[in-house]
Amino acid sequence: MSLVVQKYGGSSVGDTDRIRRVAERIVRSKEAGHDVVVVVSAMGDTTDDLLAKAQELTPLPEPREMDLLLTAGERISMSLLAIAVNAMGHKAASYTGSQAGIITDTEHGKAKIVDVRPGRIREALDEGSVVIVAGFQGVSTTYDVTTLGRGGSDTTAVALAAAVEADYCEIYTDVEGIYTADPRIVPNARKLDAVSFEEMLELAASGARVLQLRSVEYARRQNVPLVVRSSFNDEPGTWIKEGTDMEDAIISGVAHDDGEAKVTIVNVPDKPGVASRIFRSVADEGINVDMIVQNVSHDGRTDMSFTVPVADLPRLRALADHLVPEIEADSYTVDEGIAKISLVGAGMRSHPGVAADMFDVLAEEGINIEMISTSSIRISCVIRSDDIEKAVRAIHAKFELAGTEDVSA
Amino acid sequence: MSLVVQKYGGSSVGDTDRIRRVAERIVRSKEAGHDVVVVVSAMGDTTDDLLAKAQELTPLPEPREMDLLLTAGERISMSLLAIAVNAMGHKAASYTGSQAGIITDTEHGKAKIVDVRPGRIREALDEGSVVIVAGFQGVSTTYDVTTLGRGGSDTTAVALAAAVEADYCEIYTDVEGIYTADPRIVPNARKLDAVSFEEMLELAASGARVLQLRSVEYARRQNVPLVVRSSFNDEPGTWIKEGTDMEDAIISGVAHDDGEAKVTIVNVPDKPGVASRIFRSVADEGINVDMIVQNVSHDGRTDMSFTVPVADLPRLRALADHLVPEIEADSYTVDEGIAKISLVGAGMRSHPGVAADMFDVLAEEGINIEMISTSSIRISCVIRSDDIEKAVRAIHAKFELAGTEDVSA
Repeated sequence: MSLVVQKYGGSSVGDTDRIRRVAERIVRSKEAGHDVVVVVSAMGDTTDDLLAKAQELTPLPEPREMDLLLTAGERISMSLLAIAVNAMGHKAASYTGSQAGIITDTEHGKAKIVDVRPGRIREALDEGSVVIVAGFQGVSTTYDVTTLGRGGSDTTAVALAAAVEADYCEIYTDVEGIYTADPRIVPNARKLDAVSFEEMLELAASGARVLQLRSVEYARRQNVPLVVRSSFNDEPGTWIKEGTDMEDAIISGVAHDDGEAKVTIVNVPDKPGVASRIFRSVADEGINVDMIVQNVSHDGRTDMSFTVPVADLPRLRALADHLVPEIEADSYTVDEGIAKISLVGAGMRSHPGVAADMFDVLAEEGINIEMISTSSIRISCVIRSDDIEKAVRAIHAKFELAGTEDVSA
Repeated sequence: MSLVVQKYGGSSVGDTDRIRRVAERIVRSKEAGHDVVVVVSAMGDTTDDLLAKAQELTPLPEPREMDLLLTAGERISMSLLAIAVNAMGHKAASYTGSQAGIITDTEHGKAKIVDVRPGRIREALDEGSVVIVAGFQGVSTTYDVTTLGRGGSDTTAVALAAAVEADYCEIYTDVEGIYTADPRIVPNARKLDAVSFEEMLELAASGARVLQLRSVEYARRQNVPLVVRSSFNDEPGTWIKEGTDMEDAIISGVAHDDGEAKVTIVNVPDKPGVASRIFRSVADEGINVDMIVQNVSHDGRTDMSFTVPVADLPRLRALADHLVPEIEADSYTVDEGIAKISLVGAGMRSHPGVAADMFDVLAEEGINIEMISTSSIRISCVIRSDDIEKAVRAIHAKFELAGTEDVSA
């Protein structure tokens, strides 16, 4: 008998019919002899609807209140799912993040898990109950309700899997696994059987939305094997773990991200401490900067460009409005018309020239590169968002990532 | 400077525009120098929508899970309201029932408040903050989330008002106060300036839905003055308190209730202990019985009729299915086509003959009386629900309860 954590995303529990189907899947796992801990996201568009309501009231709502508001979403889905499992004759009980012992720091909207105290969950498992836990949320060290940020339910699932020493953690979603590229853009993209934590980290950081970056980091640190599967069928999905069965290809996949914007601070005095001043202020606001480019300096002044999630733009603008005069820059611009394309693969380390090949393909397609960043297993380029689909298809073809079948067929 | 508790019902916070208007009213109270604690219900139909979702899954959902589900509603409205007040430049913070120290027993769906520990609320008030609390909910002595039953937000408001020693408790709703009859049925019904706790108790028990019965009991016990007002205008409303300014009329009003059903247990053996057996079992299920009638016995057997809220019928049927054979009765019937009409007034005590007058009016209208119950200040009759509007109008006219103006004009 094994202990498994299953995480179901918002689209898997989008309405009561789907909740019933998820309940059936949980019951099948239970009847196959597994102990099951379930982590669930809010139903369908609930979180977006609640966000929109808050925006109707004010563009900059209080973060503490936003967390109370948004956590209502998982409370609804978790209790409905427990009701559905109960109705099938199996004991089930649902727990908020706080009740499940997910203790976080106090950074509302982007809290980090500092401890997991799964006492109540262990008790319920010992009593033979299916345990259902609200994803995305916890309680802070000062007893306030917190959220873990977008996609935080993956992190909840991995953190719980580590805390209860689960054999593995299943991430159920609306796709069948991790693909060599987004199948909506590249119809012959191939599903990967397995990727390493490191590759998955780079893919997640590069816009592959199947798994939240933080949850992969957490899983790697705690060595929790993950499997990404569809909640709509019984296909085996993609395993994310160290060791055996890794892909031996140089390149694992192409990822893209059009959820970022490029911010440029114009005519910054080029003196020591200015960059630190800018990015310390941005970090203090809890805004994640992705790529940074500093242009060549002229007459002691330079332009500083960086990318941030579009969702953070209101806070970024509020910050920049007073930061720009303070650092004696001229102004700032925001460009939402960008997208990022990334090529990821552990084999890249031993195969120089991948970056050059990638730049060649983009040049052949007449696509201009605005920013570049690299890691040992990834190359990312910022281009115009209008070009992104063409770029993904061309690079996917160039590196021969396609499967033998058209998965969209 | 006074301390006031304001309670806003679901229709007062039905959408973000209405939430903004409630926030404006709170800010006016604050700027007039009051300390304000706000208790808020779920937005509009949220609770009904959540109930319907659970019903889509199973007719008898787990009570513990239902409480987790339903409390999401107030979590949404309270945080949006705090966001709206904050956006107007006033400090505000929202608290769940648990955070506000509303401690209850463990009866899910109908929990009773056993203690209020308003430490966090007092701290927030001392810091000059507007305090917004989720109505209808608490945390049990075993750390589970509980709800206080339909209309429980009124009880939350009164309990908090008593705990923080508020000067009075304002109940904001979509009507302007307590009327001599339902103005939708009797257009010339008159708004009462004041009623006693005792009269309000009988009116609430008889179907006047403006205030929940339990909240009035609580207010009387703790001597918390209540005022029922409209959230859409600045009319003075109706005060509920002891002592001065009471109405000197014999009759305060006519109430009606079509939310009950009549249950008859057919051919019950007429022997000692059977009635106790029936009503103990019903009470153990947490079902509130209102009126009880036992028919004259024939050949050692009798019929036993009683009324229960329609909402409790699923649980009542589940109970009756095994209770009827156990007590060796023949069967049971459920009649949802009934309604109850009640005449309430403290002056009734010193004026005999009111009951006879009421029965006369019903007879003149050709309305058959199926059940009767009385208290020292109330007479109630169960009639066919088709007759209820006619009955309310005839009795309202007979007892000359009308104001000089048609309030519907």
